[in-house]
Amino acid sequence: MTVNRLIVRLSCVHPIALRGRHDWGTMTGRFLATYHVRADSGTIAARAQAIAVEQSVEMPLEAIEAPEVLRDIVGQVADIADLGAGVFAVRIALATATIGRDGAQFLNMLFGNTSLHDDVVLADVEIPPELAAVFGGPRHGIAGLRRRAAANGRALTCSALKPQGLSADRLGELASRFAAGGVDFIKDDHGLADQTYSPFADRVRACAAALRGQATRYMPSLSGNLDAMRAQITLAREEGIDTVLIAPLLAGFSTMQALVAGFPDIAFLAHPSFGGASRIAPDLLIGTLFRLLGADAVIFPTHGGRFGYTPETCRRLAAAARLKRVDMRRALPVPAGGMTLARVPEILDFYGPDTMLLIGGSLLMARERLTEETAAFTSRVAAHQYR
Amino acid sequence: MTVNRLIVRLSCVHPIALRGRHDWGTMTGRFLATYHVRADSGTIAARAQAIAVEQSVEMPLEAIEAPEVLRDIVGQVADIADLGAGVFAVRIALATATIGRDGAQFLNMLFGNTSLHDDVVLADVEIPPELAAVFGGPRHGIAGLRRRAAANGRALTCSALKPQGLSADRLGELASRFAAGGVDFIKDDHGLADQTYSPFADRVRACAAALRGQATRYMPSLSGNLDAMRAQITLAREEGIDTVLIAPLLAGFSTMQALVAGFPDIAFLAHPSFGGASRIAPDLLIGTLFRLLGADAVIFPTHGGRFGYTPETCRRLAAAARLKRVDMRRALPVPAGGMTLARVPEILDFYGPDTMLLIGGSLLMARERLTEETAAFTSRVAAHQYR
Repeated sequence: MTVNRLIVRLSCVHPIALRGRHDWGTMTGRFLATYHVRADSGTIAARAQAIAVEQSVEMPLEAIEAPEVLRDIVGQVADIADLGAGVFAVRIALATATIGRDGAQFLNMLFGNTSLHDDVVLADVEIPPELAAVFGGPRHGIAGLRRRAAANGRALTCSALKPQGLSADRLGELASRFAAGGVDFIKDDHGLADQTYSPFADRVRACAAALRGQATRYMPSLSGNLDAMRAQITLAREEGIDTVLIAPLLAGFSTMQALVAGFPDIAFLAHPSFGGASRIAPDLLIGTLFRLLGADAVIFPTHGGRFGYTPETCRRLAAAARLKRVDMRRALPVPAGGMTLARVPEILDFYGPDTMLLIGGSLLMARERLTEETAAFTSRVAAHQYR
Repeated sequence: MTVNRLIVRLSCVHPIALRGRHDWGTMTGRFLATYHVRADSGTIAARAQAIAVEQSVEMPLEAIEAPEVLRDIVGQVADIADLGAGVFAVRIALATATIGRDGAQFLNMLFGNTSLHDDVVLADVEIPPELAAVFGGPRHGIAGLRRRAAANGRALTCSALKPQGLSADRLGELASRFAAGGVDFIKDDHGLADQTYSPFADRVRACAAALRGQATRYMPSLSGNLDAMRAQITLAREEGIDTVLIAPLLAGFSTMQALVAGFPDIAFLAHPSFGGASRIAPDLLIGTLFRLLGADAVIFPTHGGRFGYTPETCRRLAAAARLKRVDMRRALPVPAGGMTLARVPEILDFYGPDTMLLIGGSLLMARERLTEETAAFTSRVAAHQYR
């Protein structure tokens, strides 16, 4: 990708040593995330700054009273490059201290809210050594997989057990036949979970038995929550299995992080399933699926705020959350994302009373008048006459 | 949305009772998922069928020998409607038996691989009673949240503690001031995790103390893996907290499912963070981030197969996975997604020997000649002369 023009370079921010006396723990630096943003040259500087704020403190900087937060926590736009065709590469220095040591929180700070904006792609992240040390990367890697396959200087080979719906015994037979063809690894189809037709335990035992004494290795697919996955790895290990399949975006980054740390002898093969989650309609994802999962209330960025959901999307989302069903309680819609006090009447008329209004940054803007501003918010909601 | 024309209606498939004698467990029906697909009228029928296969057995139907799998497990195109402007609504009846009882597996079967296709949006899902019963939906819902707030007939109010970087004590003070303004709920900013500047335990104790004896309720944000979240809820509950914040797409659907089931007295507020994950560049997500997390090998859909990644994306992805770093082992790229034996030489020249080739459906097409076809695959890889 050719960078046509470097239009802004605010400062060299990587790495920034801790200059103040504030205690941010052991992680004191910043790391650079690159976002590709659709914009024009007149608006890109403001858009870049908005991303830096969204991915760090998520509130108006004017409302921040603590100078150490402004200095050390707020994201900083490092530079902006025009990539041509209306796309800019924006590099933002994010504070490592905001990550803690958690994989999901890393994603959250990289792209949590910004992923909801249609004009942005998270294009790159420079992983600094302190994050490499926290997460650790592959415990076995290419060399470890080559050792498992006893194969050097050539590509490794792999095939997949499918279709789902076959019994464990039939999958085991299939594994035998692949092994007879000399394949290095056999993975479960990523659709194989713990279904009744081939429960994980039966499948692993059948496939391990089918491959016993052979060079071919079987990689079962993990599913369920962390407890279930731990039990699955433990069972697989008892059957002599040393490599497993996991879909990080389905399992959750923190789940995978815990497994990798907890089972250092196991190698992990990552599956990209659900790598394109943005193309679930928001009303379905947030209104229906989050509710189905047990959310009693669902936050979403309402129309007219910082995010691009249309009124129609918001209406459908709230309707899905509140849809009466005999088999499920209703969930409370929580419109948010840059709401102001001035919009309270309009928003209440739009959503009706079975709603929770969430206003954050706009109240905090009142600073020393926070309580009064909050009281104005709550009394306005209480006094509202619905149209 | 207006449906202009109903162009195909193959069959009425919902619900389908189990007709055969095969044991699929207690879940024997199908449920309808609606996908909006960009296509033209000449190709939409084939594209719809491809999605039905991708989201069920993920292999050529000609290679499936078990009639009960073809009948009861393979996705069925129920109907296709032309929405105009080159978009079609495709309804596919998926087999409930493929879900098991797991939240992440539900997402996997709904949209796992298809999320990687740029031409498809998951637009709707009809949740049948058997899935509502499995997942359970809100345990408290609107009525339960109203009881917590002791508020009827009006909208509820909520604000947020931020910015991150403040100490627990200062967040507690902020909570006091919001409470003095009469807000019903105060949530953590979703960026607040377990950082050194306001560790979860300190923050919860400070905010709970600040609100003790007041009507306002504090909702702390959960982070980390299932173990960590369980400990966080337990600690919060000891402080009298009965409602928490969770981001299902960061935590993983199975994680949230376990928490909702495990803490029936707690109400859950869902945050949409990371709801737009598709716009992470694939080379970054799969090549860099999965590796950072500890994946020893990473599967991805290679160019020229069933998915739309370009050769350049694939090259960058493999390069990121194999990039030499002193602080991290290299991960093995595993190109997949509709590869055939005929493409082995080309793929090997493209990726070089530090690669694992994954061929599934195309080998299974050989049926009774599976072992011979596999042997042809493995010997071709072993004998390849890299250009």
